[in-house]
Amino acid sequence: MRKDKIRVAIWGFGAMGSGMARMILNKKGFEIVGVCDQYEKIVGKSIFELLKIKANQNEVTISSDIESMLEQEKPELVLLATDSFTASAFPKIKLLIEHRCNVISTAEEMAFPFASEPELSNEMNRMAKEYGVTVLGTGVNPGMMMDLLAINLTGIMSDVEEFHISRVNSLSPFGKTVMEEQGVGFSITEFEEKMKRHEIAGHVGFKESTHMIAASLGSKISSFEQSMSPIVTEVDRKSPFGFAKKGDVCGVDMRCVATMENSIPIHMHHPQQIEPGLAGVSTKDEIIIKGTPEVHMTITPEIDGGIGTIAICVNMIPHVINARPGLKTMIDLPVPRAIMGDVRQYLEEE
Amino acid sequence: MRKDKIRVAIWGFGAMGSGMARMILNKKGFEIVGVCDQYEKIVGKSIFELLKIKANQNEVTISSDIESMLEQEKPELVLLATDSFTASAFPKIKLLIEHRCNVISTAEEMAFPFASEPELSNEMNRMAKEYGVTVLGTGVNPGMMMDLLAINLTGIMSDVEEFHISRVNSLSPFGKTVMEEQGVGFSITEFEEKMKRHEIAGHVGFKESTHMIAASLGSKISSFEQSMSPIVTEVDRKSPFGFAKKGDVCGVDMRCVATMENSIPIHMHHPQQIEPGLAGVSTKDEIIIKGTPEVHMTITPEIDGGIGTIAICVNMIPHVINARPGLKTMIDLPVPRAIMGDVRQYLEEE
Repeated sequence: MRKDKIRVAIWGFGAMGSGMARMILNKKGFEIVGVCDQYEKIVGKSIFELLKIKANQNEVTISSDIESMLEQEKPELVLLATDSFTASAFPKIKLLIEHRCNVISTAEEMAFPFASEPELSNEMNRMAKEYGVTVLGTGVNPGMMMDLLAINLTGIMSDVEEFHISRVNSLSPFGKTVMEEQGVGFSITEFEEKMKRHEIAGHVGFKESTHMIAASLGSKISSFEQSMSPIVTEVDRKSPFGFAKKGDVCGVDMRCVATMENSIPIHMHHPQQIEPGLAGVSTKDEIIIKGTPEVHMTITPEIDGGIGTIAICVNMIPHVINARPGLKTMIDLPVPRAIMGDVRQYLEEE
Repeated sequence: MRKDKIRVAIWGFGAMGSGMARMILNKKGFEIVGVCDQYEKIVGKSIFELLKIKANQNEVTISSDIESMLEQEKPELVLLATDSFTASAFPKIKLLIEHRCNVISTAEEMAFPFASEPELSNEMNRMAKEYGVTVLGTGVNPGMMMDLLAINLTGIMSDVEEFHISRVNSLSPFGKTVMEEQGVGFSITEFEEKMKRHEIAGHVGFKESTHMIAASLGSKISSFEQSMSPIVTEVDRKSPFGFAKKGDVCGVDMRCVATMENSIPIHMHHPQQIEPGLAGVSTKDEIIIKGTPEVHMTITPEIDGGIGTIAICVNMIPHVINARPGLKTMIDLPVPRAIMGDVRQYLEEE
């Protein structure tokens, strides 16, 4: 086992970035060497104070100057938890590559960036190879529940005919921002106006998940359509940060149908709402794959999106360090797994 | 995409080997260049005749002389479907490595050969590297349902506390040999006598699955216990090749408890019987992982063991060809996936 710890930095100290810091500080073999964020109220503060935990390694204070941090601390890997879209993450990833850092990005589009940004993807791949580092986008969805897990299940199939993948989750654990982005509490009219103005985020990831599935099966997506509609509640629903009264919107229902060039269709359904139980809705992740043999998988309740994303980003760190240089996706790397014990045991010795 | 097809040979033309031939002949980009088996009744016969399908590539007749076949046909990869145990598969794997063939073995112990045969494993690894080929053992179980899939699910977990993995399957689709190996139709006394004489095969794989899970989580198995007991039927049960009358044995119930050095326990339960529905038993694959977050996955009905093993062996062919030389297990390679379209699309271009 190698002697020096994995020097990790975190860029973006919101719910995801701070959750990753907390997870890493609970594991052995890591050293957090820097954390960057632009939010004034936390710049200059100790991450241990912000996380309300006892320091168990060198002090780290939030910096707003990424370049100085990279130059001084030379992290081996940076967890980038700042964006949803590849175009906005790209300049940051470029900077990190130029500083010879491996990168794991939470940006949803980065889970399969070839889907929406093939040119930027080729550029990231070229640069990563030039500088000898690996770049990966991942998360619970896209990244696992509606794509990688389905791909894994096709491994025991001799023929695949059709995918039906759904994720029914609760928005109740989430905060104010998510409530607004998902339209919780709006009237139907307000929701529809905001939807027209593209102010309802919904789920970003169907395109990435379907393209990842197609690529893993040696094909491409030839047609793709997605739709968004309000989930209207028939009872008053209240969550810690959201409220929707009877007749108003308690979440967003999203669907997509994509078809591969080999004619295999992928159907996805992802309704997200506060307090689904009040409407008798059971949360779950479900993957049905028609073919030989037919697969019918259910995970109940659904995998928590917050913890799941934090965990998979951290758990992929050794895989990313072990990988050959370049831009990778989850289908290029070994099966993800939880880091238990010292993370350095997961590193290849070569 | 490379021009020449993947030249595959199959050693062992029983239910698994012949099923793999059938699957490969349905895919593009493969060429079956040889099939070996010792069974007199099929030696010299055409595989197309035996499979009762129309020839869609060069004729292949069953040979009983593996060395001549390897020398003449120079397969790039050999599917070895002859054994359950590493020790008996080892001389065959050695021969294949010396002929510079990549190998995929269905031997249950080969799914994680380090568990029972660490010395032979090191020797296979050394030889495979010397000759520049890759050796993999896989199958539906061990290889996927009770190990790799559970490992994949830990990827979204920040902490793992306990595994409870069960596979409840039907033996009804299987033939005479399996009925005898699993004790179907015996009286309780007969079963117990045969069990003492180690004539009830039961499931070979708990050791491999638990060791694979431990290795994937950076640990080792420190204690391992397994037990076998007869499943006694309360109604007459009849399957195409088996019959158990009320009060007799209709299958085998196997359990194991293993503990990792990091104290995480793995509980496994694998009851196999004919016509489970007659006793109100629903077949399924189930993985419960306690920790953060808790995961509760069910696949209903269970993944068919025959088709599943055939499919995963064939589906792993491109991953094995792409891999660096050495002895690999499922946790070293990218996530398995179904081969759709031309298999050569799955090969890395390098």
